[in-house]
Amino acid sequence: METQNKLTPDMWVTEKHKDSTAMSFRLKQVLFSEQSPFQHVCVVETEALGKLLLNDGMTMVSEADEFVYHEMIAHVPLFAHPDPKRVLVIGGGDAGTAREVLRHKNIEKCTMVEIDEAVVRACREHIPSVSCALVDPRLSVIIDDGVKYVAQTQEKFDVILIDSTDPIGPAQPLFGEDFYKNIASCLAPGGIVVSQAESVFHGKELQESLLKILRKIFKHLYLYNYSNLTYPGGLWSFSFASQNTTPFPKELIKKIHNSHFSFRYYNPNIHYGSFALPNFQWEQFQGLLDTPAFLPSI
Amino acid sequence: METQNKLTPDMWVTEKHKDSTAMSFRLKQVLFSEQSPFQHVCVVETEALGKLLLNDGMTMVSEADEFVYHEMIAHVPLFAHPDPKRVLVIGGGDAGTAREVLRHKNIEKCTMVEIDEAVVRACREHIPSVSCALVDPRLSVIIDDGVKYVAQTQEKFDVILIDSTDPIGPAQPLFGEDFYKNIASCLAPGGIVVSQAESVFHGKELQESLLKILRKIFKHLYLYNYSNLTYPGGLWSFSFASQNTTPFPKELIKKIHNSHFSFRYYNPNIHYGSFALPNFQWEQFQGLLDTPAFLPSI
Repeated sequence: METQNKLTPDMWVTEKHKDSTAMSFRLKQVLFSEQSPFQHVCVVETEALGKLLLNDGMTMVSEADEFVYHEMIAHVPLFAHPDPKRVLVIGGGDAGTAREVLRHKNIEKCTMVEIDEAVVRACREHIPSVSCALVDPRLSVIIDDGVKYVAQTQEKFDVILIDSTDPIGPAQPLFGEDFYKNIASCLAPGGIVVSQAESVFHGKELQESLLKILRKIFKHLYLYNYSNLTYPGGLWSFSFASQNTTPFPKELIKKIHNSHFSFRYYNPNIHYGSFALPNFQWEQFQGLLDTPAFLPSI
Repeated sequence: METQNKLTPDMWVTEKHKDSTAMSFRLKQVLFSEQSPFQHVCVVETEALGKLLLNDGMTMVSEADEFVYHEMIAHVPLFAHPDPKRVLVIGGGDAGTAREVLRHKNIEKCTMVEIDEAVVRACREHIPSVSCALVDPRLSVIIDDGVKYVAQTQEKFDVILIDSTDPIGPAQPLFGEDFYKNIASCLAPGGIVVSQAESVFHGKELQESLLKILRKIFKHLYLYNYSNLTYPGGLWSFSFASQNTTPFPKELIKKIHNSHFSFRYYNPNIHYGSFALPNFQWEQFQGLLDTPAFLPSI
């Protein structure tokens, strides 16, 4: 074994942030590597975190902690909404968000609009623990531009989840005002849109830009945070916007209890606690958010 | 400038975790590097995070986010305690914890017992934004073994903060049962001990070992979490133990308001929200902790 180790190349996959910080993971093997029309799509197996999906070299999903992101993007709005039946996912080609959405028995249809079929194919073939929902008959996968889709569709949705990469490359328009005006038109009464809202420590300007757009369009606006092993800075946010639904529903505990879900990250304390913003974030955004200075109790 | 950049070596400081993940920060310069009798002590200036203190190559403090750790180790117990006057810090030679403690006007004396004078000297000389409390007349710095100190002292403290490195090298006994028996003897009535309690994602066994020891000795036991830019895994914990004080005091908001402190991370929502544990952590430790399934309101 020792001899074999000596012969094994010392392979690492490294994601640099602003060329001044970097995170590296020791590689076991590269499972998928393809330049799609939109981005470079790659699945690797690592020593520490299982398989990773990397789009343009940025880690999107790690098997070790994808449950945090996917539980938090899906369950916070789905338990906040009084009766969600139709869900739209923009992006999210790995299908981890759809997997969590479809655990809710009352969901009749989940539409996933992913621009890059290579992402769906890579995850279907190599990360089944995340992509398993692709076979669910309630899931409709549309390979198309989400921006175009929301501008054209006549369908209405109870919950829309913007499961995007960073606003570089194909995801850039997903951080724009026109996109969110169309999203608002696609929401059924009581509808909620939750968006991947970047890094708390490193993404302050991106967060502000997104919140200013959402503030113009939606009556209720909140941020909530979650922890991540592979995204730079560790603490990241989702935005929560709606015309008439808040994230603090009556009977949350009962609803969660009745779901009989087994969660790995989410629970009632985390639901409320994730809206507790670090003071620098709260001070920067309190004029834009409806987050109260003192969060309500469960 | 371009020519100069081309001549500048591409220097990074890298901390590996279990030889399978790594975090790297681009270096501007090395300010201090010395092998003390206990560990290698190093202060570097980085491109992204300001100055870092590294003990045995592990990042202890970064100027960019030290406020998170130091506010959370100090203010959670100091606002939970009804009337803290005497504080003991074990470790914490960078003096960032003492800095936050001494913001509380009612603190009469803060005793800091640091085993390694090289840490204090490195931070005094090179990280004044953190070590500034070293000149406070209410601070007593003792260069000695904290384990020996708590076994011998006759003093009693209202709050004891175990501001330790990982349980490798000099900090190892700070995770042991004998140490915490002595800590319990050093606490005045109503006293609280808060300890650096390792990584949520990567330190599950260490957390369990520490909590089992604390559970044997203290009547009230909790964990609370905070986010960190430079510690592996991003989400880390403190333990909170006491014979008769809980972390959820009456009039918390009034006490915080009356302090007139300007916080960067801590606030009343964060105080409560930090006790919301990810479900995997809650399920692992609920038998050991007094954290309620549904956190009380502020």
